[in-house]
Amino acid sequence: MNKKKNIENYIKEFSKDFDKKLVKLIPKNTFFSNKLYEAILYVVSVGGKRLRPMFVTEISRILGVSKSKSFRAAAAIEFIHCYSLVHDDLPAMDDDDLRRGRQTCHKKFDEATAILVGDALQTLAFQILSDKKTDLKSDIRITLVNELSKSSGLNGMVAGQMLDLVAENKKLSLDQIILLQSLKTGQLFRFSCIAGPILARSKYVDKFEKFSDYLGLAFQIKDDLLDVEGDVKQIGKKTRKDKLRGKETFISLLGKENAKNKSIELISKAKEILDIFGNKSQRLNQITDYIIARDR
Amino acid sequence: MNKKKNIENYIKEFSKDFDKKLVKLIPKNTFFSNKLYEAILYVVSVGGKRLRPMFVTEISRILGVSKSKSFRAAAAIEFIHCYSLVHDDLPAMDDDDLRRGRQTCHKKFDEATAILVGDALQTLAFQILSDKKTDLKSDIRITLVNELSKSSGLNGMVAGQMLDLVAENKKLSLDQIILLQSLKTGQLFRFSCIAGPILARSKYVDKFEKFSDYLGLAFQIKDDLLDVEGDVKQIGKKTRKDKLRGKETFISLLGKENAKNKSIELISKAKEILDIFGNKSQRLNQITDYIIARDR
Repeated sequence: MNKKKNIENYIKEFSKDFDKKLVKLIPKNTFFSNKLYEAILYVVSVGGKRLRPMFVTEISRILGVSKSKSFRAAAAIEFIHCYSLVHDDLPAMDDDDLRRGRQTCHKKFDEATAILVGDALQTLAFQILSDKKTDLKSDIRITLVNELSKSSGLNGMVAGQMLDLVAENKKLSLDQIILLQSLKTGQLFRFSCIAGPILARSKYVDKFEKFSDYLGLAFQIKDDLLDVEGDVKQIGKKTRKDKLRGKETFISLLGKENAKNKSIELISKAKEILDIFGNKSQRLNQITDYIIARDR
Repeated sequence: MNKKKNIENYIKEFSKDFDKKLVKLIPKNTFFSNKLYEAILYVVSVGGKRLRPMFVTEISRILGVSKSKSFRAAAAIEFIHCYSLVHDDLPAMDDDDLRRGRQTCHKKFDEATAILVGDALQTLAFQILSDKKTDLKSDIRITLVNELSKSSGLNGMVAGQMLDLVAENKKLSLDQIILLQSLKTGQLFRFSCIAGPILARSKYVDKFEKFSDYLGLAFQIKDDLLDVEGDVKQIGKKTRKDKLRGKETFISLLGKENAKNKSIELISKAKEILDIFGNKSQRLNQITDYIIARDR
């Protein structure tokens, strides 16, 4: 329990620090209206656990890459994550009014603005990654851009979102739900975990990709569990919505107990991969544990 | 008149050839549903004049860059253009049922699919530009990615779209409408015109950026004129919609005659820039003329 408190404090500190730098990456140019800038700022500063940037940063650190060198990759994946949430919350998609305990973008502003905010956040991710101003070599920057596009695009996250829509009120097999989720949520974890090895020109890209497979699935199982068990106030978004929409989840397929056990198994497999790093990966181990220990 | 027919034939040939290669860039992976792939294919194969790719290709050619080397930059700007149309047509935005003479994406499929198609097409643009498989050096690829993101993002095209929404039923000054349009339509022309110089490592990047300023504005004035004068069958999309929406245009501000003259002046200024290339720029001159000679 103390260990969990520790890591929660670390997460709080990390995200406070990260958020301060993140908003500075949004170029301010208000032309004759500052609505777009304000809406982007609203979305980005709503906060969140910043788990994906934390994996980028921590894995980079283990491989000897400084926080300042890994920062843009961390920010880029968070911008992509934010864009996906804004579009996902739209009435035509998941139709959610609440996100991270506050009004969703289209509720606070309007639908057209939310569409544009999502579009702009996606572009911004690629803009900051490709920026010459960083001291990263071009071959590293272009590899990051390419991997980020693969993780988020039509054979990555967006494919998962499409499958999720298609799957409503359909029976899915366990393999199908694993595929769907490994795209929808797994792919952004994939980028978060391979960005460090790419930055470090390390030989461990494949190892961390495998690590992210376990991590992403465990994360999704935990999300499904929170959706069933969690409290809207605690989680900051609507709960029980999967069932309401007739969506198949790990819980509906495996049952709560089996799903929980599966998530524990996945996290333990993920941590096995980290063994080669010995003591260096202590904090990464803790963050990995937190993926299924979290209450929100 | 014969000159116009000639260039129209050239455009037809170019786009036929270009379209064939363009669809091959869409990675097929249908998972357990091929809806996303089909919707993307629908949007991309609806056709269009492919003016932006043509500027990429033709300017590249003048600077000694082969068609195969400039192809991905041409495809990327077209994917961005397609994504922007799909999102722009959504009910929350311009709410259009017709595009290039066929049903818009959300009409043919549904809104959620259209949102995802736009998202995926944006990502795809960055994916194909950053791909290692091209024989382009990383520093060129990363510069293209960065310029494309600047042209299309929150200080580029998306900013223009936001201003366009904000401006509905508002009085705008001529400077404001120029700013709005130079972002909304001008920025994608900007990338189309500087991609060649970047690929060629040419010193003419600034010259072609200036060229694109004139081009983009002339294009928009012509679009406004077509909206007022054109025929829905010819143009393939709803006309008179600016007036219906209380949108200020170059016509409402300048009047038809002045607007037409302004567009002629802009095209002539654009062509002056091409003088340094002598005979080499003959076709580019013709395409530039076509920007205001076109009927759709």
